[in-house]
Amino acid sequence: MTNQHLRVDGARLWARLEALGELGAIIGPDGERGCARLALTDADREGRDLVTGWMRDLGLTVAIDAIGNVVGTRAGTDENATAVMVGSHIDTVRTGGRFDGNLGVLAGLEIIETLQQHGIRTRHPISVAFFTGEEGARFQPDMLGSLVYVGGLALETALDVHAADDGARLGDELTRIGYAGPTPCPAAGAPHAYFELHIEQGPVLEDEGVTIGAVTGVQGISWTELTITGQSAHAGTTPMRLRRDPGFVAAAINTGVRALATEMAGLGEGTQVATVGRCEFHPNLVNVVPAAVTMTVDLRNTEEALLQQAEVVFAALCEQLAREEGVTIERRTLARFEPVEFDAAMIDLVERTAIGLGHSTMRMPSGAGHDAQMLARVCPTGMVFVPSANGLSHNIAEFTAPADIAAGADVLLQVVLATAGTEPDGSTEPLDGAASR
Amino acid sequence: MTNQHLRVDGARLWARLEALGELGAIIGPDGERGCARLALTDADREGRDLVTGWMRDLGLTVAIDAIGNVVGTRAGTDENATAVMVGSHIDTVRTGGRFDGNLGVLAGLEIIETLQQHGIRTRHPISVAFFTGEEGARFQPDMLGSLVYVGGLALETALDVHAADDGARLGDELTRIGYAGPTPCPAAGAPHAYFELHIEQGPVLEDEGVTIGAVTGVQGISWTELTITGQSAHAGTTPMRLRRDPGFVAAAINTGVRALATEMAGLGEGTQVATVGRCEFHPNLVNVVPAAVTMTVDLRNTEEALLQQAEVVFAALCEQLAREEGVTIERRTLARFEPVEFDAAMIDLVERTAIGLGHSTMRMPSGAGHDAQMLARVCPTGMVFVPSANGLSHNIAEFTAPADIAAGADVLLQVVLATAGTEPDGSTEPLDGAASR
Repeated sequence: MTNQHLRVDGARLWARLEALGELGAIIGPDGERGCARLALTDADREGRDLVTGWMRDLGLTVAIDAIGNVVGTRAGTDENATAVMVGSHIDTVRTGGRFDGNLGVLAGLEIIETLQQHGIRTRHPISVAFFTGEEGARFQPDMLGSLVYVGGLALETALDVHAADDGARLGDELTRIGYAGPTPCPAAGAPHAYFELHIEQGPVLEDEGVTIGAVTGVQGISWTELTITGQSAHAGTTPMRLRRDPGFVAAAINTGVRALATEMAGLGEGTQVATVGRCEFHPNLVNVVPAAVTMTVDLRNTEEALLQQAEVVFAALCEQLAREEGVTIERRTLARFEPVEFDAAMIDLVERTAIGLGHSTMRMPSGAGHDAQMLARVCPTGMVFVPSANGLSHNIAEFTAPADIAAGADVLLQVVLATAGTEPDGSTEPLDGAASR
Repeated sequence: MTNQHLRVDGARLWARLEALGELGAIIGPDGERGCARLALTDADREGRDLVTGWMRDLGLTVAIDAIGNVVGTRAGTDENATAVMVGSHIDTVRTGGRFDGNLGVLAGLEIIETLQQHGIRTRHPISVAFFTGEEGARFQPDMLGSLVYVGGLALETALDVHAADDGARLGDELTRIGYAGPTPCPAAGAPHAYFELHIEQGPVLEDEGVTIGAVTGVQGISWTELTITGQSAHAGTTPMRLRRDPGFVAAAINTGVRALATEMAGLGEGTQVATVGRCEFHPNLVNVVPAAVTMTVDLRNTEEALLQQAEVVFAALCEQLAREEGVTIERRTLARFEPVEFDAAMIDLVERTAIGLGHSTMRMPSGAGHDAQMLARVCPTGMVFVPSANGLSHNIAEFTAPADIAAGADVLLQVVLATAGTEPDGSTEPLDGAASR
């Protein structure tokens, strides 16, 4: 049998997903099995210990770096070759699922175990990585570990971030759970390539009836927090004409960004989305016109020019409403990332491999941020998406069918083999050959 | 000097307002002096003790009833005449001011002291009352003490209400602070008339440059809580067309009720107001389309038919938005009071008295609820409004100028004298004469 016919053991991968999902497990009212394993908590330590133990059991050389990223490496036959890395993260949001992140890491281990089982060596080493604090649920920014890994954020700055929940310092928490490692970070050299298998976290693959998404890149993100200040007033005694109501302005902004996204839907290649996820009224009483409202606006587009256009329209809307209602609006940028385009050869490779394995496939951007977008700064990077049932993620009802999990892991296995090169049979080709086709 | 030339001692009244305001005092960042004296707390007990002590110092007969209402009575010359009552409340909201409620009670004491000082007797007794839990900030419904007083809510039901903050039972709290009194409640008989001096709690008098409001009645109130349930989704990965966003629906309802109030502004005598005071997103995260939103809508009108019309338009808006966005909306009525019209003779009397005293005056409805609307169920009732600086109330910056306080108390004094009848000089007329003009 040639390496192209190699398949992962889906049941073994599923069992690891289940076992890791038991740590920080939360059970929903309808029996949904979710996860609350926030970065650098005791539950995260348990998850790290379990995965690191599996790495050692598989004979990998484990390196823990100064920001707590863990990389397990299987040597290649070429001493001078850099590693093909697969990875993701194992931290979750507070009411998260068992697949987001975990799948990419455990599929990496499954690939290693499949290669061991069949006695297959690769020319390039293969590394399996999990990065610290991808979710941003406890320490911000999100994708923190991979950002430091590629040199995008100074280590000392990252270590000094304080938790949104209990105020703990990231560096102290790393030490507390025993994951402040000796390996320097940022990494000394870039991987040969990076691949990440991830659940889609959205409804598109399911809606289209497609199994494998070949991810073309990651949408640009523009997050703004607005603090709208008006005049608190009695709901019964204040005529409408004398009101300066920040709640009304927040509402008009919410409906306004919906209109913006709808109007921009057809422009360019990008899909414009706009979301008001947070909204807090103060003092939040039934019979009081609010004094102030805090809200967030999340704008995303795959094209930087269109994202900037959306930002301009949004800013003008805020200014107009502030003037008309007599309120003040403070705008604060919470996050701003330009769109990321993955390496064309990697997108081709993922798509071609999925087709070769007989899976339906489509190219699609990622609406969510991923560690892959950080690694794309330093090496050729590809991502594989599998469907999320009902499009749910960051939700205890998050689910991907075992057959889709196995399909995604098979694609990951084959793109890794194609990129790392196998010996002695040489039936798969190294990256350079693949990329030049 | 005839009784028409009698004036209160504004400085003495102001000093009582300051002294009562020290109990439960809260100081704002800019030195504003507010009050947190929630019903049946230790601070409320201190306030009650102070005011009851003043009543006894003035020689009033003090009766404490079974719901904690306190009535201090000065005898009249006619043993068979029922009392002319003045009153209000001394409880405050959590971030309240020093005038709301307190003014009506302490102006009553000032009237008594003015009459004592000048040796003036009245045919009808004069009572000064403060009612339990008018604000509804701790025990709901609001105006609870006066509602029980007039027989609108069963005593046992009211005693069994539990606090919104600490869950304490109202009856237990009354006993704890020593204000579960022996006087039966509801009251055995109705007062001859009831007058309440109150700050406007809105911006209209100040905006119009008028000192005295002759209150025509109280707006009807319709409070609805909406629970809007959609589908939580990832803000980056969920195309706009696949969203069921309860936050968007909440926003469209907010802008919709603003439009409703604006469109109905010119209909009838009533001033339509509509307010979204509470709005809570769940899970309230920047990158998550909310799963559910809870919000309140407060509709008020002085005309019942128009209030019902507003309710119909609002309900239709909810149904249309739910259908269009694919969300469910549960509606729950939190409060519903029909508009109250005060006695025409009482409105005339307040207006004529203010003019006679040389004050600018206007007729106006009350947008807020008051104990007076409960007393209006059982006796002729009038209210006197004085301006609120910047329209502020339920706010530590609540303020009414000393000159306006004194003006309002002078009007109160004269309408009480006109209604209670003075002896022996008889220069003021009893109610029946005033009402028949």
